[in-house]
Amino acid sequence: MGNTFGHLFRITTFGESHGGGVGVVIDGCPPQIEISAEEIQVELDRRRPGQSKITTPRRETDTCEILSGVFQGQTLGTSICILVRNKDARPQDYSEMAEKYRPSHADATYDAKYGIRNWQGGGRSSARETIGRVAAGAIAKKILKQIAGVEIVGYVKRIKDLEAVVDPNTVTLEQVESNIVRSPDGEFANRAIEEIDRYLRQGDSVGGVVECVARNVPKGLGMPVFDKLEADLAKAVMSLPASKGFEIGSGFAGTLLTGSEHNDEFYIDEAGQIRTVTNRSGGIQGGISNGEHIILRAAFKPTATIRKEQRTVTRSGEETVLAAKGRHDPCVLPRAVPMVEAMVALVLCDHLLRHQAQCHTVRSPIEG
Amino acid sequence: MGNTFGHLFRITTFGESHGGGVGVVIDGCPPQIEISAEEIQVELDRRRPGQSKITTPRRETDTCEILSGVFQGQTLGTSICILVRNKDARPQDYSEMAEKYRPSHADATYDAKYGIRNWQGGGRSSARETIGRVAAGAIAKKILKQIAGVEIVGYVKRIKDLEAVVDPNTVTLEQVESNIVRSPDGEFANRAIEEIDRYLRQGDSVGGVVECVARNVPKGLGMPVFDKLEADLAKAVMSLPASKGFEIGSGFAGTLLTGSEHNDEFYIDEAGQIRTVTNRSGGIQGGISNGEHIILRAAFKPTATIRKEQRTVTRSGEETVLAAKGRHDPCVLPRAVPMVEAMVALVLCDHLLRHQAQCHTVRSPIEG
Amino acid sequence: MGNTFGHLFRITTFGESHGGGVGVVIDGCPPQIEISAEEIQVELDRRRPGQSKITTPRRETDTCEILSGVFQGQTLGTSICILVRNKDARPQDYSEMAEKYRPSHADATYDAKYGIRNWQGGGRSSARETIGRVAAGAIAKKILKQIAGVEIVGYVKRIKDLEAVVDPNTVTLEQVESNIVRSPDGEFANRAIEEIDRYLRQGDSVGGVVECVARNVPKGLGMPVFDKLEADLAKAVMSLPASKGFEIGSGFAGTLLTGSEHNDEFYIDEAGQIRTVTNRSGGIQGGISNGEHIILRAAFKPTATIRKEQRTVTRSGEETVLAAKGRHDPCVLPRAVPMVEAMVALVLCDHLLRHQAQCHTVRSPIEG
Amino acid sequence: MGNTFGHLFRITTFGESHGGGVGVVIDGCPPQIEISAEEIQVELDRRRPGQSKITTPRRETDTCEILSGVFQGQTLGTSICILVRNKDARPQDYSEMAEKYRPSHADATYDAKYGIRNWQGGGRSSARETIGRVAAGAIAKKILKQIAGVEIVGYVKRIKDLEAVVDPNTVTLEQVESNIVRSPDGEFANRAIEEIDRYLRQGDSVGGVVECVARNVPKGLGMPVFDKLEADLAKAVMSLPASKGFEIGSGFAGTLLTGSEHNDEFYIDEAGQIRTVTNRSGGIQGGISNGEHIILRAAFKPTATIRKEQRTVTRSGEETVLAAKGRHDPCVLPRAVPMVEAMVALVLCDHLLRHQAQCHTVRSPIEG
Repeated sequence: MGNTFGHLFRITTFGESHGGGVGVVIDGCPPQIEISAEEIQVELDRRRPGQSKITTPRRETDTCEILSGVFQGQTLGTSICILVRNKDARPQDYSEMAEKYRPSHADATYDAKYGIRNWQGGGRSSARETIGRVAAGAIAKKILKQIAGVEIVGYVKRIKDLEAVVDPNTVTLEQVESNIVRSPDGEFANRAIEEIDRYLRQGDSVGGVVECVARNVPKGLGMPVFDKLEADLAKAVMSLPASKGFEIGSGFAGTLLTGSEHNDEFYIDEAGQIRTVTNRSGGIQGGISNGEHIILRAAFKPTATIRKEQRTVTRSGEETVLAAKGRHDPCVLPRAVPMVEAMVALVLCDHLLRHQAQCHTVRSPIEG
Repeated sequence: MGNTFGHLFRITTFGESHGGGVGVVIDGCPPQIEISAEEIQVELDRRRPGQSKITTPRRETDTCEILSGVFQGQTLGTSICILVRNKDARPQDYSEMAEKYRPSHADATYDAKYGIRNWQGGGRSSARETIGRVAAGAIAKKILKQIAGVEIVGYVKRIKDLEAVVDPNTVTLEQVESNIVRSPDGEFANRAIEEIDRYLRQGDSVGGVVECVARNVPKGLGMPVFDKLEADLAKAVMSLPASKGFEIGSGFAGTLLTGSEHNDEFYIDEAGQIRTVTNRSGGIQGGISNGEHIILRAAFKPTATIRKEQRTVTRSGEETVLAAKGRHDPCVLPRAVPMVEAMVALVLCDHLLRHQAQCHTVRSPIEG
Repeated sequence: MGNTFGHLFRITTFGESHGGGVGVVIDGCPPQIEISAEEIQVELDRRRPGQSKITTPRRETDTCEILSGVFQGQTLGTSICILVRNKDARPQDYSEMAEKYRPSHADATYDAKYGIRNWQGGGRSSARETIGRVAAGAIAKKILKQIAGVEIVGYVKRIKDLEAVVDPNTVTLEQVESNIVRSPDGEFANRAIEEIDRYLRQGDSVGGVVECVARNVPKGLGMPVFDKLEADLAKAVMSLPASKGFEIGSGFAGTLLTGSEHNDEFYIDEAGQIRTVTNRSGGIQGGISNGEHIILRAAFKPTATIRKEQRTVTRSGEETVLAAKGRHDPCVLPRAVPMVEAMVALVLCDHLLRHQAQCHTVRSPIEG
Repeated sequence: MGNTFGHLFRITTFGESHGGGVGVVIDGCPPQIEISAEEIQVELDRRRPGQSKITTPRRETDTCEILSGVFQGQTLGTSICILVRNKDARPQDYSEMAEKYRPSHADATYDAKYGIRNWQGGGRSSARETIGRVAAGAIAKKILKQIAGVEIVGYVKRIKDLEAVVDPNTVTLEQVESNIVRSPDGEFANRAIEEIDRYLRQGDSVGGVVECVARNVPKGLGMPVFDKLEADLAKAVMSLPASKGFEIGSGFAGTLLTGSEHNDEFYIDEAGQIRTVTNRSGGIQGGISNGEHIILRAAFKPTATIRKEQRTVTRSGEETVLAAKGRHDPCVLPRAVPMVEAMVALVLCDHLLRHQAQCHTVRSPIEG
């Protein structure tokens, strides 16, 4: 059950880092949405390995094939399957890991849970698993854009202790894609690349923070009390590999303010719309979107698999040391950006359909 | 749909702050668990209003009635309904709020979504909604304790910029309950009470951080890739009123370390068990519990409803000001502690059953 | 989990025949639907015991209370809880059944599954459980009527080997309610009452068939491939106590025809609509409603609890005999009619919202 | 959402009759189950077209590929994807159907619902869709066999008005597979083949009834009140293409008996087990399996697509006639047998895991 996400716009992913391939089945997609493999590929290319010197050198084109659910360029309303074959797998690099557990990786817990593990790579815990998410997210983004004009932009906000200066109100995809770190702050990007490169050469790794903004989100998305929009966003983001924290709006820093400092006062804008003066709520109040920009942040830990030697144990319970081989990202942040965007898009698209179902049935009933 | 939580141990809550009552239906509870209204009441009393000078003065005994699912002191395996009647409702206090939206509250978004709102109190967005969670959590805690010896202890870690010193390895419920702030650090508690009281007198409010530890959690809980244990915990906690952030283990601070600093090295303990030297993972690796203590933190913003005058708008779209009446907590943290514990218990209990279903069917099959 | 039904319009029921009460929580209901306890009571009164000489003499008014989710006569869009207290419980009648299993009843299987059973009546397997379904069905019917003009009429089609003559195209609720059997065929009703009464006096029971028609169902409801409309209707009806079979349209008899005899040819009606000449499909083709009347039938076995002596065994595994005490229906059919209608309404309402979500988001997007 | 089935052992299918391929993702499968593509292929071969003169002549080997979830011959516990490529598609045969709706087929309703349809074959409404079900069912059967010794045998019980004589207590797969009709009654099979052939030559089609028995099902499976075992079996079977009716145990015929005739009296067998003298309940009482054989029947209508000319309409709303081309089964029954078995296996496997989760957690808790 753990491989399905969403209630109405629902995805089920499959595939390990080494094996036949990885992919996704999307169920509940509205019909007559124009979609092509090329559009999906654009997002997969932002996620794929080997795209720059600060990502893993594994060479995968991650070329996707739409197996079902699309006919003559349009969605059919039935389940869409998208498949990406694994190409550049090197199981031999992992032979040592068949026995030795990588510290802070999923090797030991998968073995504890299932009693079996595909040790030829990270198996299902590999970041390759996110291919299905990003492919489905590409379709979700398209629907959100088409129906409501929603724009979702993610970017690297922090690498270790280096912080970017970004205005979430105006940041564009083009700015984000202008450098290999995926941050609109070019100066920060240059320093971050140096930093990542420095730790890479030491056989070490670094983490950081991705921030993501969703603009033009309609009012009314989110379902109290458990499926509050921020709760579903938190789950979505915290299900990504290496994530350790989540914030909406003011987040942890907001706890340092008093209520009178923190509250977003209301006003009426020129168009007669109810708006907030500030946006410490991050676009969500009481679990429901209020029409302001949704702003969230996700913490990603430094990559667990490093070349530096560490203490560990074997499957059979003996202490040993490990200096990991294989090809790994020294920093997951640049590739995490499209993943976070995809998860945000999936949540918003799901909630758009859920809101439509419950609250617009009466106002705009179907005609049969 | 948004009022149901959990996959196997599943709760559905109902009720507004003003109306017939609030409660919960618990489905999927194992049979033959001994449970009494008194045990549930203990947890509800930790959550109820009017318990101290730093909580809302609303007087509710929150006395629960078990309507179904328990027979002769034991669970039947069928759905359990628990009901708490509303007693001390004062709708007249809210007459102004029928028209004026409270800043950073759910008034405006509920109206935007549903086109209707129970304005006699917070309605479904009131913290009274959490009664059902806490009641269900009491049963979840009992099951976890009985089957696996799991202990869950939450406490206030920070109020505004005052931080408590707590050892999650040893903290006890008794220590937490020794003061009205619900923090085992007594010195901190005294200062925090003063701080809360100071802002209360100013008609203002404060926020902070709750930390929660779950000890003796069996290895193997959590379901990659979307239902990772930390993802479900994040959703659980972020669905609580006023929550703004979530962290597992090292959280946001962990992003400041390198991989070699952050990784939890493995060793074999005296009992021959695989253990980690440190616990920056917070008891979860690859979405699956590793047997170490699960440690998480949740940020709660300062209470939105304050007596200080603020700019706002009316339902009919006019700008105005509001100095809120009604009875409200100047700081939600002390009462948030049992709520966080309950949500953690619900997630762990659900995943315990899910793990049992998938991974122990083969090893310990039923005998029919 | 087994106590929840529906995907978007979702109900969770609770309660045993003896205990605090029975009821339902409805989640996902559209907001601003006018609903009163009186309207719900009308349906509950059709279901309640003691309504005529051919139903159980247990005296319950089954008076319902709306605990939450309705404000000033309108649904809030949040979860609705409806409670009916048990009044005329007589646990002493069941003391023998604490030990002896009633043949073809749920006593033995509940014990086998849960290891515990509320033996003071049928517990959760009692027909009292259906109160929550009928209450929720009343709201579903109202929504269907209001949004799409859907009419749902059920009636007794057969009692044992006596068959009624009914035209599903024109049958009305008034005709159905004109006699205590709930069949629009008055002559049949008189003979059926005699038959039921005859077996009642012998301490025996009889079964039969309920037919149900849903008229004005919009085209397009149903979700291939697993949530086909007939599949969800089958599950809904087969979850009712005592049901043994389900048919849609031509049903089992349709298997005696050839394809050319069975197929529903198409034509264009005066309004330019695509219609079918015949309706052997029962209003559903390929799992999706086609705009014709939906017609289904459900088989209900003779009541298991009878006064006639039968061979049985005790809980502790000894053979014995039992002549059941307690108050029971000699024939469940008259009271099954509102139950079947409720289940049909719940399925159609759920699928109306599901269809709205997926297929009308694009055509009639929300405006935020 | 309609493409997912099951709660814990959960499948999601994809694919149209013409397009890249069809398949299934299985989530929640227990780990360490030995499974090979060859074992799955055995079941797919029973389902595939072109297997005999009384099935469609479309030539598909339906060769399956396991894309994920299996490692070194064992299930990993993560999602399993199985893919079958479409080979012998002939879209040109369907050009007429792009415009003309086949009577009693899904053409018109798919268009009404989605506003788009893959007219190059039956699209998602084609029986090819069931490949994913049968592949997943093969794994479910293996688990059921291995854990509990469950045997599932389906067979053709009736073709039009010809009825087979079969003893569900002893019927074997070998007997079923001994002829192309898939009925253990050889004499019946010969007559049925003649009958099918006769209608085939007339450009017509026939329907019938499949019966299925599940033996050695453990006591206790099924979850009242909505997820009763017979309710989930009904949904499972009624979701198959062309199904029109479902019966459990005595079914519709059982309504002709009185309670004293119909009830299954209990006795204690030689092993000290509680058993029933008769089995009119069909192995399920109160929605829970009682350890007796589960026996059900499904009605399948005559194939809708026939070569005989019929009245119909075009997509653009004009009346016309159609004599269908393409390759179609004159009778779906022989190929429906493995489909029914698969659906029964999926339901039982899901409920086995669900029962294990709820009721065996306490009795045989995990050890961590």
